[in-house]
Amino acid sequence: MKRLSDIGEDSLIERLVGRLDRADGGCATVVVGPGDDCAVVDVGRRGLYQLLKTDSLVEGVHYLADAPAAKVGWKAVARVVSDFAAMGGWPGQLLVTIAMPANKEVRYVEALYRGMNKCATAHGAEICGGETSSVPEGSAAVISVAGTGWVKKGRYVTRSGGRVGDSILVTGKLGGSLRGKHLSFAPRIEESRWLVEHFRIRAMMDLSDGLARDLPRLAAASGCGFVLDEKSIPRNRGCDLFRALGDGEDYELLLTVSPRTASRLCREWNAVFPQLPLTVIGSLTEKGCGEPLAVKQGGWAHFST
Amino acid sequence: MKRLSDIGEDSLIERLVGRLDRADGGCATVVVGPGDDCAVVDVGRRGLYQLLKTDSLVEGVHYLADAPAAKVGWKAVARVVSDFAAMGGWPGQLLVTIAMPANKEVRYVEALYRGMNKCATAHGAEICGGETSSVPEGSAAVISVAGTGWVKKGRYVTRSGGRVGDSILVTGKLGGSLRGKHLSFAPRIEESRWLVEHFRIRAMMDLSDGLARDLPRLAAASGCGFVLDEKSIPRNRGCDLFRALGDGEDYELLLTVSPRTASRLCREWNAVFPQLPLTVIGSLTEKGCGEPLAVKQGGWAHFST
Repeated sequence: MKRLSDIGEDSLIERLVGRLDRADGGCATVVVGPGDDCAVVDVGRRGLYQLLKTDSLVEGVHYLADAPAAKVGWKAVARVVSDFAAMGGWPGQLLVTIAMPANKEVRYVEALYRGMNKCATAHGAEICGGETSSVPEGSAAVISVAGTGWVKKGRYVTRSGGRVGDSILVTGKLGGSLRGKHLSFAPRIEESRWLVEHFRIRAMMDLSDGLARDLPRLAAASGCGFVLDEKSIPRNRGCDLFRALGDGEDYELLLTVSPRTASRLCREWNAVFPQLPLTVIGSLTEKGCGEPLAVKQGGWAHFST
Repeated sequence: MKRLSDIGEDSLIERLVGRLDRADGGCATVVVGPGDDCAVVDVGRRGLYQLLKTDSLVEGVHYLADAPAAKVGWKAVARVVSDFAAMGGWPGQLLVTIAMPANKEVRYVEALYRGMNKCATAHGAEICGGETSSVPEGSAAVISVAGTGWVKKGRYVTRSGGRVGDSILVTGKLGGSLRGKHLSFAPRIEESRWLVEHFRIRAMMDLSDGLARDLPRLAAASGCGFVLDEKSIPRNRGCDLFRALGDGEDYELLLTVSPRTASRLCREWNAVFPQLPLTVIGSLTEKGCGEPLAVKQGGWAHFST
């Protein structure tokens, strides 16, 4: 009898979404369905597509029970905002679900909400509804944030638009997120909007599970392999290559552009975002070429044992 | 130190949403915010508002671990669809979050998804994304469904539009849901759309926590009290008044209309939906009058002990 731990997250999702039916979908049309950072939906608005995203934090998996509640709340919203950035978009309305044991302190939940509200308003989003539920005593708390966002029709970027020969770039530095960044990171909304406004970004995603897991996903979605220039990978202080690839929760942008675009992009980037590095770390190759195995070590996987 | 069990669900929500900031909200404007069955958002679409809703099922709270997975999946989606019905609308796109222990059988999750997909397509909705996460071993599974829906601009109905003297009506029969209906109910989408197309419905909600809890919420939102004609309350077979008021999970529509509308409505209803009763069960009164206490017994409350 197969259990989730036997097949892992990616192949579980593949199994599940492969069997979904299309329906008329109310008054809207799905442009990009399951498998990307957000769903992209045409809701009949001129010039804009709507983005849909949901993401959850589980106590003991994504944060520790004794982590400051306001920071956990920030993170819960920031992860969703980061996914809007990954598409080249920005957030709009958010719905918040909190499932907690009844013996949780009211003060804790209030601080959690304060952190969520702070992150939402900092990025022009607003919490407009949600839900609270109890979980049985002893069960892990679950915080789930669902949201709508927006992206210009000609500007949205998926994981699947990469082409053989594209340069692979990453914002910021990788690794060591558990030292605190995973609870207080700034989603790359501003950077992403600048990127899609000024350059033809072919593929993009945000790094949540670590480059070692996320880059193979982007490459696979684009029908490509990849090579990495390991020495060029920007690492946070105290992080070796293994940690930069595998720690996860970087919430930086991973993107590909044509090689010609890459050099112009890096030049202009440094003038606009002098504090934040943007680094070419490798390139997309023909599928089956490249070096997928070398970096498959590490990275965060749900259901793996 | 106050805990969630000390204050209960309703006052927790009141505390939390009272402190939310408004933001520019991307490219959309919130018309109805927290506190109703759905949020109502103006997304710049002619003639239509978008509805936003999220709802979760917790193992051991909303369903038992040995309940058939496909039925649990149906219920998870049907609850959200029912909330769109409560506003006079219909569903569009859905996002599904599944947080499960890693030792859960793949077959179980596949059946769950099958049930969700079945309920979605049965109501013209489509699952266009979502997420899977692990929870620590021994923790309750959480299934969360978030969705967008639509409602005609002039037709959406909130909980707060009721007026003193309004007749209170309920669809179907109440009580005994645990015998099976809570896992297989049909959200009242068709009925709701007919209602808002043909009548001026002043207030409406769906009954999830039982009439004893939900009617006081509708009355309070409308700034009214209420009187019930207890003998008229339509009960399922084997249910006494207490169970009809308190069992919960009826997923019927509770609505108010002017007394003059009520008689015409009931007549026309019986011609269109001959299989489903629609019953006048009481009326809204001045706030502070009526009989709130008599029916406050029973009903489902999260965090209560």
